[in-house]
Amino acid sequence: MALIVQKYGGSSVADVEAMKRVAARVAETRNAGHQVVVVVSAMGDTTDDLLDTASQITTNAPDREMDILLSAGERISMSLLSMAVNELGVPAQAYTGAQAGIRTDSHFGRAQIIGMVPERIARAIRDGQVAIVAGFQGISKDEDVTTLGRGGSDTTAVALAAALHADVCEIYTDVDGLFSADPRIVPRAHRLRTISQEETLELAAHGAKILHLRAVEFARRYDVPLHVRSSFSEKEGTWISNRPANPELAGLVPEAALAHNQEELVEEPLISGIAHDRSQDKITVRGVPNEPGKAARIFEIVAEAGVNIDMIVQNIPVADQTRANLTFTLPAGDAQRALDALEAARGELAFQELRYNPDIGKLSLVGAGMRTNPGVSAKLFGALSEAGINIDLISTSEIRISVVTRLEDLDRAVQAVHTAFGLDSTESEAVVYGGSGR
Amino acid sequence: MALIVQKYGGSSVADVEAMKRVAARVAETRNAGHQVVVVVSAMGDTTDDLLDTASQITTNAPDREMDILLSAGERISMSLLSMAVNELGVPAQAYTGAQAGIRTDSHFGRAQIIGMVPERIARAIRDGQVAIVAGFQGISKDEDVTTLGRGGSDTTAVALAAALHADVCEIYTDVDGLFSADPRIVPRAHRLRTISQEETLELAAHGAKILHLRAVEFARRYDVPLHVRSSFSEKEGTWISNRPANPELAGLVPEAALAHNQEELVEEPLISGIAHDRSQDKITVRGVPNEPGKAARIFEIVAEAGVNIDMIVQNIPVADQTRANLTFTLPAGDAQRALDALEAARGELAFQELRYNPDIGKLSLVGAGMRTNPGVSAKLFGALSEAGINIDLISTSEIRISVVTRLEDLDRAVQAVHTAFGLDSTESEAVVYGGSGR
Repeated sequence: MALIVQKYGGSSVADVEAMKRVAARVAETRNAGHQVVVVVSAMGDTTDDLLDTASQITTNAPDREMDILLSAGERISMSLLSMAVNELGVPAQAYTGAQAGIRTDSHFGRAQIIGMVPERIARAIRDGQVAIVAGFQGISKDEDVTTLGRGGSDTTAVALAAALHADVCEIYTDVDGLFSADPRIVPRAHRLRTISQEETLELAAHGAKILHLRAVEFARRYDVPLHVRSSFSEKEGTWISNRPANPELAGLVPEAALAHNQEELVEEPLISGIAHDRSQDKITVRGVPNEPGKAARIFEIVAEAGVNIDMIVQNIPVADQTRANLTFTLPAGDAQRALDALEAARGELAFQELRYNPDIGKLSLVGAGMRTNPGVSAKLFGALSEAGINIDLISTSEIRISVVTRLEDLDRAVQAVHTAFGLDSTESEAVVYGGSGR
Repeated sequence: MALIVQKYGGSSVADVEAMKRVAARVAETRNAGHQVVVVVSAMGDTTDDLLDTASQITTNAPDREMDILLSAGERISMSLLSMAVNELGVPAQAYTGAQAGIRTDSHFGRAQIIGMVPERIARAIRDGQVAIVAGFQGISKDEDVTTLGRGGSDTTAVALAAALHADVCEIYTDVDGLFSADPRIVPRAHRLRTISQEETLELAAHGAKILHLRAVEFARRYDVPLHVRSSFSEKEGTWISNRPANPELAGLVPEAALAHNQEELVEEPLISGIAHDRSQDKITVRGVPNEPGKAARIFEIVAEAGVNIDMIVQNIPVADQTRANLTFTLPAGDAQRALDALEAARGELAFQELRYNPDIGKLSLVGAGMRTNPGVSAKLFGALSEAGINIDLISTSEIRISVVTRLEDLDRAVQAVHTAFGLDSTESEAVVYGGSGR
């Protein structure tokens, strides 16, 4: 017997039929002798519909009320799913975030989990019940409903899995797992059977949308094995774990995956996957006086505007070494704020020109084996050069190299690099089944 | 300054426009210097939509899950209404039943309030906020969400008004108050300016749908003045109270109404209104052996089947005094259960025949002045006889006479009696604005 936490996103419970399919899977897992905790998102478009109604009332909704409003979506889906599981003869009960003991701070809309007290959930599964928990929500010390922000249901699931010492946290979505690149861009992308938490973090942080960064961070911190898979098929998905899987899971996990998982501890893959990101813009501050402290001041001003900068390059023209150009990338939604703040400080900063370019793309190559293999960047730049693609900014971590290209070159860049590193599978593996949840 | 609890039903918040209209009224009351607590039902068809979705999943939903599901409707409406009030510059916060301290027993779907601890609400209004509370829901000692059943939002409002010692509980609906009869049947029905709690109880118990019986019982027990009025107009509605209104309310209440209210204490009206009820059926058990205990046994069996009987007549034919006929009325939804239970006990009861008639109507004449005026029943029967309408069963209380007629005669009966007792107004007063809430 294993304790399994299953998380189903909005697309997995988009309508009554999908809900029944999920219930059947939950019942099947339970009937195989496992303890099951289910975390569920709001059905399909529920959240967007609620946001839309609110926007007809006000453009300035109090955060507290918005959180109570949005939390209704998961309460609806959790109670319907519980009914559907009971209908199959498997005892189940639904629990709100508060009832599941998910304690958060009071930052409405992006609350952080500060404590997990899942007493009722522990009791329910001990009593042989399936516990169905509303994702995305918690309760503050003032007893107000909070929501966890983007990726909140993934985070709920991983946090519950950690608190309950679950053997695995299964993240159900509308694709078969993590792929070596986005299958919509690289049809020959292959499904990853296993990947380390660090690599997943890098992929998630640099544009891969399959799992939310916060949930992966949580999984790493508390060492929760994740299994990302599709709710629309029975296929094995991708295991994200730094430790051997529980042998009790043998019935659930094909032996090959377990073997591969063990193996991974011995030899790390050179390259796991390629993430891409279209959501960043680029700002260049040209002709900044080349004096100590000027660059720091620019980033201070941008930070005070609440903008997170990603990549940075400083470049001093050979022709005039008294002036520098500073280029950085940032989330597209923050660009106007950053531009306004810089323009307002033009007198102080004494720069000559602000340039703004929204048409950039970022490609990130991620692999734990990079640590010990110095040839990776040469191979990357070679492949891009051969494809006639110019590189703009570059940044690296121990297990990642990211480059910025023109937006129109991004897809081609991903394809070229995928092929160059021998990641193409012999056949098209990827199927995308539906929309995408939260 | 007065403390005013306002309850808005589903039709008053059916859509965004209606919600904004309600918000404007709330803001206006607050800006007039009063403390305001608002209780709100689910928007329009939300509850029916949720029930419909659940019915696609199971015909046998666990009561606990059904309550969590349905409670989402009020959470949505309360948070949207709070946003709308804030949008008008009036500070407001929304509270779930649990947050408002509405403690109930664990009878899901029909929970009874067992305690009121509205600390957060008291604090909110003390701090100058409008408190907006989800109607229809509470929380059990096990911290499960419960719903209060039919009329639940009215009950929430009256219970809050009682616990907070409010000066008045305003029940907003889609008609202008209580009328001397249903205006759809009697166009000349007049709006009641005041009516006693006892009379309202009788009207509500015997078919008048404007206010739920439980809420009126609560109002009587804790002496909460009710004001039933329309959210679609500015007209004065109907005051339900046994005591003079708070003079502080003078700004809210036309002087005429206050005067009338005082006056009422001195002289009670002969007839306040006429209720009618089409929701009952009639069962006759014919040829029951005329022995002691037989009738009691019949009603025991029906009670064991969970059926509440309303009116009863026993009738022993002159021709054969060894056998009696027992006739009773009961809610239409319970008829099959009662018939099955009686049929199953046919051997023991030794009756000759079961007759079932769903086509009956009940007319109830209510007036506190009846206590001291013996001529009322003669006048009632005279009016019906003149209109050629046969009476079947009759029952009375101190301030009510009810008669059962054929269903097809009911409307005509109500009209004839309304006229006979001089209740017709000189012009048509009633406007029905929308659907009806819960």
